[in-house]
Amino acid sequence: MHPYLSAARKHIVDGPVARFLPILDWGSRYNRDTATNDLIAAVIVTIMLIPQSLAYALLAGLPAQVGLYASILPLVAYGIFGTSRTLAVGPVAVVSLMTAATVGELASQGTPEYYTAAIALAFLSGLMLLGLGFLRLGFLANFLSHPVISGFITASGIIIATSQVKGILGIKGEGHTLPELLSSMWENIASINIPTVVIGTAVTAFLFWSRKKLKPLLVARGYTPRLADIISKAAPVVSVFLTILVTWLFGLDKAGVKIVGAVPSGLPALTIPSFDLSLWSQVGVSALLISIVGFVESVSVAQTLAAKRRQRITPDQELIGLGASNIASAVSGGYPVTGGFARSVVNFDAGAETPAAGMFTAIGIGVATLVLTPLLFFLPKATLSATIIVAVLSLVDLGAISRTWSYSRGDGAAMIATIAITLLFGVERGILAGVGLSIFLHLYRSSKPHFAIVGQVPGTEHFRNVKRHKVATTIDILSIRVDESLYFANARFLEDAVYEAIAANRDIKHVVLMCPAVNAIDSSALESLEAINSRLKDSGVCLHLSEVKGPVMDRLQKSHFLHELTGKVFLTQFDALLELAPGLTTATLKAKRQVASALVRGK
Amino acid sequence: MHPYLSAARKHIVDGPVARFLPILDWGSRYNRDTATNDLIAAVIVTIMLIPQSLAYALLAGLPAQVGLYASILPLVAYGIFGTSRTLAVGPVAVVSLMTAATVGELASQGTPEYYTAAIALAFLSGLMLLGLGFLRLGFLANFLSHPVISGFITASGIIIATSQVKGILGIKGEGHTLPELLSSMWENIASINIPTVVIGTAVTAFLFWSRKKLKPLLVARGYTPRLADIISKAAPVVSVFLTILVTWLFGLDKAGVKIVGAVPSGLPALTIPSFDLSLWSQVGVSALLISIVGFVESVSVAQTLAAKRRQRITPDQELIGLGASNIASAVSGGYPVTGGFARSVVNFDAGAETPAAGMFTAIGIGVATLVLTPLLFFLPKATLSATIIVAVLSLVDLGAISRTWSYSRGDGAAMIATIAITLLFGVERGILAGVGLSIFLHLYRSSKPHFAIVGQVPGTEHFRNVKRHKVATTIDILSIRVDESLYFANARFLEDAVYEAIAANRDIKHVVLMCPAVNAIDSSALESLEAINSRLKDSGVCLHLSEVKGPVMDRLQKSHFLHELTGKVFLTQFDALLELAPGLTTATLKAKRQVASALVRGK
Repeated sequence: MHPYLSAARKHIVDGPVARFLPILDWGSRYNRDTATNDLIAAVIVTIMLIPQSLAYALLAGLPAQVGLYASILPLVAYGIFGTSRTLAVGPVAVVSLMTAATVGELASQGTPEYYTAAIALAFLSGLMLLGLGFLRLGFLANFLSHPVISGFITASGIIIATSQVKGILGIKGEGHTLPELLSSMWENIASINIPTVVIGTAVTAFLFWSRKKLKPLLVARGYTPRLADIISKAAPVVSVFLTILVTWLFGLDKAGVKIVGAVPSGLPALTIPSFDLSLWSQVGVSALLISIVGFVESVSVAQTLAAKRRQRITPDQELIGLGASNIASAVSGGYPVTGGFARSVVNFDAGAETPAAGMFTAIGIGVATLVLTPLLFFLPKATLSATIIVAVLSLVDLGAISRTWSYSRGDGAAMIATIAITLLFGVERGILAGVGLSIFLHLYRSSKPHFAIVGQVPGTEHFRNVKRHKVATTIDILSIRVDESLYFANARFLEDAVYEAIAANRDIKHVVLMCPAVNAIDSSALESLEAINSRLKDSGVCLHLSEVKGPVMDRLQKSHFLHELTGKVFLTQFDALLELAPGLTTATLKAKRQVASALVRGK
Repeated sequence: MHPYLSAARKHIVDGPVARFLPILDWGSRYNRDTATNDLIAAVIVTIMLIPQSLAYALLAGLPAQVGLYASILPLVAYGIFGTSRTLAVGPVAVVSLMTAATVGELASQGTPEYYTAAIALAFLSGLMLLGLGFLRLGFLANFLSHPVISGFITASGIIIATSQVKGILGIKGEGHTLPELLSSMWENIASINIPTVVIGTAVTAFLFWSRKKLKPLLVARGYTPRLADIISKAAPVVSVFLTILVTWLFGLDKAGVKIVGAVPSGLPALTIPSFDLSLWSQVGVSALLISIVGFVESVSVAQTLAAKRRQRITPDQELIGLGASNIASAVSGGYPVTGGFARSVVNFDAGAETPAAGMFTAIGIGVATLVLTPLLFFLPKATLSATIIVAVLSLVDLGAISRTWSYSRGDGAAMIATIAITLLFGVERGILAGVGLSIFLHLYRSSKPHFAIVGQVPGTEHFRNVKRHKVATTIDILSIRVDESLYFANARFLEDAVYEAIAANRDIKHVVLMCPAVNAIDSSALESLEAINSRLKDSGVCLHLSEVKGPVMDRLQKSHFLHELTGKVFLTQFDALLELAPGLTTATLKAKRQVASALVRGK
């Protein structure tokens, strides 16, 4: 909670209702200055959002206006339930791709069934997000490890960019995997349309230029960096207007340039989404994946922006915010939405202070839907393809592969596998394989915990790995330090390790397990410890523990293990040696005295 | 390796061939005394194994003699490839139940297809075990957590016992789940056969009595405990002979007592198992589950016995030993086998010293198959049912539920779920659900790692949880100790925790992550640390680390994190305070001097 909240307001804001309605918090402090800043940001985001939302709708295989529908009510809903001050929700590239991949399985593009399924997907995803939020299951998103999610985003970016090349070439191309896309585009390569290619490449070039060069240019012309930045962000809308003009003047549509055509104007009618359970069961898994991917992306954007202003977002409440947005999208003829990176940054840089900016943006898009749609008739689809390509290429981060690989082979492998499977077999299989792989890798790693046979650093109370340091050991005491929590995946490994050591050295009379890094011991590990204890007993060896953590000790107290334990539990490894091998330790005490006297002499 | 091995033999024994042929090790030291001991043990195990193997074959839905077939070659194969000196392999209850459940899906009992499928199952399971062994994938068995496996065994025991009650009542009863069994037995309750009930209950009573009372009785009569124990183990064979005699004398088979009937005598013909791939794909998953369950059981028995004599077993080589046994079983008309608990203990107690005992047992069973089978004609199936019931009830350990629950709610829940699902939906679903649940629970637990905000214990270099101890902190330094390895499942939790603390206290200028218990940092956690670092930077806070472990530090060196880190990496938390808050620490040094001088004074 924000410390500067007046106690007067605190009781409302901390109430159970308020927890689910962040708007009560910022709304109660809303004033004219904030409104002005929010309004400015809203105008800029609106201008940026119009071409994007049209483009992403087409990417999802839906009519252009659906993108606009998905950019009105969802923003309002998020404004009421979301915890980020500056997150801008709406249609985004990856989720649009996943929508196309899912719905494409059930119906063919352009059919009413296709549209119905897309709406149902948004609704179901919304319900799931709400459910996860109320059950506080946000942690499920953690199962998407960073290498998996970033590999998935990269692969998606590649697939999206490839799919849009067909728009720029003016050819047909089907499929949701790279091979499908490339082969079907290759088949239709003959039907390439020159005017389309000209417009497409021109717009792409212009957008890349404005992204890289326009801002410095404007700054050089004396604009403030922030203004220059905002102007350059408007490049897509400029190219939209220009290409509409050109197409209309020269009647390029008759020359084979595919145009958006008649976009029904007017606000979307509120509709109740399909409750067809068979349809829901078909899209269930996809809806869950879309929800989680969207949530992960959205939260990381929101956290980045919040941290800059030292604000907080609440992940579990974010689930509710995004859930509400998707349901709002579904009931207003939209499709799955989530927080977008680019637009949120623009919103933030443009000075948005509260979610009200999003609501103003919604009004802006609403107006556009009412009055601008007729103007979009001559908008070439190639322009939108170009917009998408430039937008998604920023998602592709191939450098991450080598970075990850060099840090951890396993994570690198998981990332490469996710990318490869996503490209070759589609988004769902890709992400599922990635999740499975990272869980497997984690279990595999911790199933072979790092442990060391330790000895005493002469003249100190410290104990170190016998392999790495010159340390003192005694023949009849085996001190093993385990550097991992003990649970089912590594419990048997510990057993093997101990028996190995015992069988190798028949002089051993005492085994001391040094547990400073053991943060938990689950039932499996407990049984292993009991087994070790009783088996060592059978072969006449005592088992001791040392440096057991408080929480772990509390837990062990609940079991019979401590009663059965043949040895003792020592506070420190030094105490253990003090009792089991007094000879070793007297030297230490002597040494300590010397150190001490040195210290007293004021050194 | 055994230290007392002469160097001369070492080069053979350590060679690559020897690794896969433990027989070279013990075989090269085999002598007359060992042979005698092995021989005695073999005789006793043979006597015990005959009724058991017949009974378990019937439990698996196979002809009685198949149990004998499965107790000949497999024992020889294990003797050559196994690493346990005293493990006795052959048909066991749980694996027989799993076989029945699997094969029952494909064919109906008594048909040639059923038998063929059982053989194929043994063969496939054998190949899988071999594969896992050569790839050293023994750790896969760890995914069966203790609560899951013990819950599964308990449930299996209950199902098996229930299924054998029908044998004792002389009624029919189908099904592999408790509801199925009970309902179908209820339907046939009318066809109950009194003579069968008499025999069945008499034998059951006798076996329970001899298990509980016979040994003490014999000891009282002056027998040595060991001998008494062995004699009482022969009770099943006695009841077999007696009931055969009674049935034959009074012609009880005509009175409706079901008997084993004509058992083809003679050794099994060597056959090549079916290579029908469609069949393999149908039983693939089951074969894997049977392999792993069998392996886990077998290894834990082997380890228990090995430890008693301070010997070693090699789990990965055990996979090869069991794989060979199952392939041997398949080619000699047997079905899936593994190491059995009861018979291994008998073998051990009877003084077996090497796997040769198993080979001698094989010969014993071989002879029995040649000459005894005609005598088994009048053996009532009720006798075998009684044998199984008494044997499996020792598997049922309901006390484990409360023990596990009181130690860990989560593990207890996993155990209860495994038992319930196994009883209600069968063995496969039960074990799969259990595995999934334990993995989920582990991820869930470590996704919310234990972490503490720590302060300095005044006058010392120690730092403790501010919530648990009276400690000194400074307003501008936040010290967080994380008690868990950092990986994808808990990376975001750490982020949230840090942002939470930062947003709550705007005076914080330094965050020190104290990592003494962080044993690993995977790529996801690394990215989270990078995110934390850059976001704290945005809000003017320095990030420091302290007490980072060697292996973790080595890993971090491979990344850019340490270059981007706004703060420093301190060897100890005290060093961190020494530099960031000198005021706090001078007091400590003063105190240390006092302690030191006390020490010098020779206290």
